[in-house]
Amino acid sequence: MAELTKDAILNGVKFDKDGLVPVVAQDANDGTVLMVAYMNAESLKITIETGNATYWSRSRQKLWKKGEESGNVQKVKALYKDCDGDTLVAKIIQIGDAACHTGNRSCFFTEANEKGEWIDKSQPLFDPKKVYKK
Amino acid sequence: MAELTKDAILNGVKFDKDGLVPVVAQDANDGTVLMVAYMNAESLKITIETGNATYWSRSRQKLWKKGEESGNVQKVKALYKDCDGDTLVAKIIQIGDAACHTGNRSCFFTEANEKGEWIDKSQPLFDPKKVYKK
Repeated sequence: MAELTKDAILNGVKFDKDGLVPVVAQDANDGTVLMVAYMNAESLKITIETGNATYWSRSRQKLWKKGEESGNVQKVKALYKDCDGDTLVAKIIQIGDAACHTGNRSCFFTEANEKGEWIDKSQPLFDPKKVYKK
Repeated sequence: MAELTKDAILNGVKFDKDGLVPVVAQDANDGTVLMVAYMNAESLKITIETGNATYWSRSRQKLWKKGEESGNVQKVKALYKDCDGDTLVAKIIQIGDAACHTGNRSCFFTEANEKGEWIDKSQPLFDPKKVYKK
């Protein structure tokens, strides 16, 4: 992805009123939806230039190079936009297997059951306390 | 999903300042990301009660029972929320195979190539002009 001419890619994306576009990070191998995060134009440009997924953290209001603390970077293998151009799918290779800051492979480890409850199916692959020094 | 007690599910979701939550509709069989749309509390409630994915159309500012015009409804087989509770994944069976209003199976039919261009890989399964009477 590092070879991409970034302008055509950036111009083809409709960022929302906050300048962001949601990105579905999907495992390039087995299709698991690992996380959904947001990119602004700058982070999308960096993602294209480096081949490593870089987001905009809405909670921290700063660029978020995925894996900068944990080492669990995401190598972007393919990038898609939807029919409206306002949502992206990035097919990625997740270094370290876990995409979620909880240590889970996917952020979507909480499932609704038939009783109408959210069931935590957390199966962390690492201990967040050891990986993130806060 | 029709048996779900909706209150616990709704209370566990963080809707954004517009009252919406993004939902990744993923093929329950092969994991293809078909579309990303938004639900408000009412549409999520209807989705849970009926088992058919119902969204909030941001462009039309109204409830959008997916497939109400085309017949291509989405049967929700499983529902997940992420670690922040502000994004959902719905694993669905797409009636009629095509989720996109363009007639494509997935809305994500436009792929970035190595030259930095967006390439339209549209392969419509139906003719939108025949399906949607405008």
